[in-house]
Amino acid sequence: MAQELDFETQIFEKEIIEVAGTKEAIVRGGRHLLPLLPQALEGISQIGVIGWGSQGPAQAQNLRDSLAGSDIKVAVGLREGSSSFAAAREAGFSEDDGTLGEMFDIVRASDFVIVLISDAAMAEHYREIFDNLRDGATLGLSHGFLLGHLQNVGDTFPENVNVVAVCPKGMGPSVRALYVQGAEVNGAGINASFAIQQDVNGKATDHALAWSVGLGSPYTFQTTMESEYRSDIFGERGILLGGVHGLVEALYRKYKDEGATPEDAFRRSAEAVTGPISKTISHHGILGVYEQLDDAGKEVFKRAYDASYLPMKAVLQEIYDEVRSGNEIRSVVVAGERLEKYPMSTIDQTEMWHVGEQVRAARVEDEIPLDPFTAGAYVATMMAQIDVLDEAGHPLSEIVNESVIEATDSLNPYMHARGIAYMVDNCSITARLGSRKWAPRFDYAMVQESFPALDAQQSETGPSASFEGHRIHGVLDTVGQMRPSVDIFVAS
Amino acid sequence: MAQELDFETQIFEKEIIEVAGTKEAIVRGGRHLLPLLPQALEGISQIGVIGWGSQGPAQAQNLRDSLAGSDIKVAVGLREGSSSFAAAREAGFSEDDGTLGEMFDIVRASDFVIVLISDAAMAEHYREIFDNLRDGATLGLSHGFLLGHLQNVGDTFPENVNVVAVCPKGMGPSVRALYVQGAEVNGAGINASFAIQQDVNGKATDHALAWSVGLGSPYTFQTTMESEYRSDIFGERGILLGGVHGLVEALYRKYKDEGATPEDAFRRSAEAVTGPISKTISHHGILGVYEQLDDAGKEVFKRAYDASYLPMKAVLQEIYDEVRSGNEIRSVVVAGERLEKYPMSTIDQTEMWHVGEQVRAARVEDEIPLDPFTAGAYVATMMAQIDVLDEAGHPLSEIVNESVIEATDSLNPYMHARGIAYMVDNCSITARLGSRKWAPRFDYAMVQESFPALDAQQSETGPSASFEGHRIHGVLDTVGQMRPSVDIFVAS
Repeated sequence: MAQELDFETQIFEKEIIEVAGTKEAIVRGGRHLLPLLPQALEGISQIGVIGWGSQGPAQAQNLRDSLAGSDIKVAVGLREGSSSFAAAREAGFSEDDGTLGEMFDIVRASDFVIVLISDAAMAEHYREIFDNLRDGATLGLSHGFLLGHLQNVGDTFPENVNVVAVCPKGMGPSVRALYVQGAEVNGAGINASFAIQQDVNGKATDHALAWSVGLGSPYTFQTTMESEYRSDIFGERGILLGGVHGLVEALYRKYKDEGATPEDAFRRSAEAVTGPISKTISHHGILGVYEQLDDAGKEVFKRAYDASYLPMKAVLQEIYDEVRSGNEIRSVVVAGERLEKYPMSTIDQTEMWHVGEQVRAARVEDEIPLDPFTAGAYVATMMAQIDVLDEAGHPLSEIVNESVIEATDSLNPYMHARGIAYMVDNCSITARLGSRKWAPRFDYAMVQESFPALDAQQSETGPSASFEGHRIHGVLDTVGQMRPSVDIFVAS
Repeated sequence: MAQELDFETQIFEKEIIEVAGTKEAIVRGGRHLLPLLPQALEGISQIGVIGWGSQGPAQAQNLRDSLAGSDIKVAVGLREGSSSFAAAREAGFSEDDGTLGEMFDIVRASDFVIVLISDAAMAEHYREIFDNLRDGATLGLSHGFLLGHLQNVGDTFPENVNVVAVCPKGMGPSVRALYVQGAEVNGAGINASFAIQQDVNGKATDHALAWSVGLGSPYTFQTTMESEYRSDIFGERGILLGGVHGLVEALYRKYKDEGATPEDAFRRSAEAVTGPISKTISHHGILGVYEQLDDAGKEVFKRAYDASYLPMKAVLQEIYDEVRSGNEIRSVVVAGERLEKYPMSTIDQTEMWHVGEQVRAARVEDEIPLDPFTAGAYVATMMAQIDVLDEAGHPLSEIVNESVIEATDSLNPYMHARGIAYMVDNCSITARLGSRKWAPRFDYAMVQESFPALDAQQSETGPSASFEGHRIHGVLDTVGQMRPSVDIFVAS
């Protein structure tokens, strides 16, 4: 069962939405709310954004733009000698006006410190960051990773600060791109969750909400920091990245083995997922994929779904268990030393991704097939992920954002432009390690279990029998309406 | 650097062997030493062997046979209602003469309690076992898993008992089969390591050595319980099981993609490894494989070796890190609940293993090719495993047993008879979970890194340049001479 959460805000309008019989309290965003930010950030004269990786550039710029004209300064802090100083300067931050500096200087000079450094750096430097926080400051994180690490090593946050999280359900470049596009379509953006871990002065909630609205989140829903890191680390190992990668590898080989040309096999697997299937889900929901198939296609979809759902769910449950036990976080931390000696290789040198480059170069978008088998396998994996999170009691908004909207509105469009392999090779270390660990497991589960099961007897009680009536479709419908439908623009 | 270990025995003859400039103290076995066992087991009137899985039947029967005619009784303890009572009775143990009973009854009635239950059962029941041990008893384990689990959960062994380990470097059926064959060839058997974790009465070492000699170990070398569980859990995820599985999956597809028939692809991959390559290593060492190739074959071997060594080593180092951090043991423990809901599927339903069945049925042993590419990739993986263990400081005897002899003398012959997939599907839960987790990683590393690297420039400084001069060949030579060369008999 989903956990019951609620919050109070003095500044923003809290709405209660009812999803699948469960009430969730949320806050809608929009540019018309930006004038409220200074009031919601009362007591804060400087926001320090630490780090310039994926989220750093997006969040620092969005916050600066959203707070333009107010008295609140947004400053970027980087580690001494970081090569990112140049990029930050190019984005308009500068040592001269105090909006760019050494990270611990910025930490000490800020009342609200948003730490967006890599997970490995977080594990290494958190103690020094804690020690440099002002008394009564607000510590902001965009990911619960640090909480998981503190639990693993038996440490805690300092008691004299607010600790809040605002976690955009999309990667940094999407957070920036949709914010920029949002100048024309009010409310376009990446949804975010927020969590209050510590509130020492009663202002933590409004600080967090102001941060989220300032980033351009169409709507902000509540979670806990623990629930957030579990679903986030799980989701990127699942359908968002590792799952989709393993799945298309297995499907590509299957179609080739059945006689398809490499190009057709690529179109029917990777292209179908990141193109028409993803776009259809984004605009018409998960059910929309099924509904737009003809009768023969619906049969193929169901066969693929029935054969894929359970094997995929078993892998997903294993991932969830590994995240919950702390193992995945511990893996990322212990990998640091190894990666210096054995840097991660890229995954894009295989035949499949070379073929993919050519296919993308010659792409005619409207001719990409919505392959019904691929659709059934992909949707089954997505539904299995939804069910694993649901059974673990995550908030429904978190579930649809981590399993559906982040895929269709943020990651899949990037993969469509540059390739799934490119995405895997260019995401955070945490996501990359996880994706490399789990993608082959999805692949093997498809090949060892799903494909052999295709010849088995179909029955009315297969997993697909409960697909059309699943409560998540209504949830996605409600949640989906809270963001304007904007196809994100990604340069290839 | 290898850790320095030494021990004192009152009963057996300690020998110092020099391997690669390092001295190791060992004890050779043999049937002529069986009369020494009662003296070495002074103070023990009953040995309780708990569990009837892989090691249980082998060790209980070997010890009973070795102690026949002495006053020491060997009794088997099983959990109430276990379906294994019938099998234990069939092997000659019986409730009537007190050599078979409920496990905790047997624990309480024994002075030497050898616990051979599954790792998951160990994690669940260890506290109750500890509580039922006699004061001053000797607790025997054939695996350091429990120590790793205690470290993870912050618990310890009881202080009033000896804690020793004797760990045969082969699965139970091999321990029994070679012991039986040893009636004709004195000293045939599976090597074992031993470790003294606690010695409360000065008798722990001789108890352990008596146990090992009683099992029929040709030679027994020393390790620590921590070193043992690391190398053991690592090894089965590596070349012994997970590594060999992932490797042949990748090679099979490669040969097929290059135009080989499925049957030929299977012969050149799985059959070549478990047949001629393994047998050559067993009789002529790792170098023997290379030396028996012609010049063209040697070139192919080196190309495969150079392309495979580093990618395989990176995966192996990741496995080692996961074992050392406690993650792998924690994974096995948390899997318990999940496996009730999602039982492990078998991996043998893919085309490759169906082809394999037919190939084995029609096999002409002498016609199996010693494919030089497969040999180079397999040997590179084996050498990479050796180097990871060596860099982590494991005793050299442990390294060659966990990386070479256990493969060639125990596991590969079983795989050759029944298939690698059969072996994966029928080993311990711990090995099976690990093999399913890591095999696909070896596969992906081969496909993503090794195969693309084949076209890259060869250089004199590739990993193969240091292959022929590697110090492990001398170690294997010394160690290999301490067991009579007996090809194990395995019914298909």
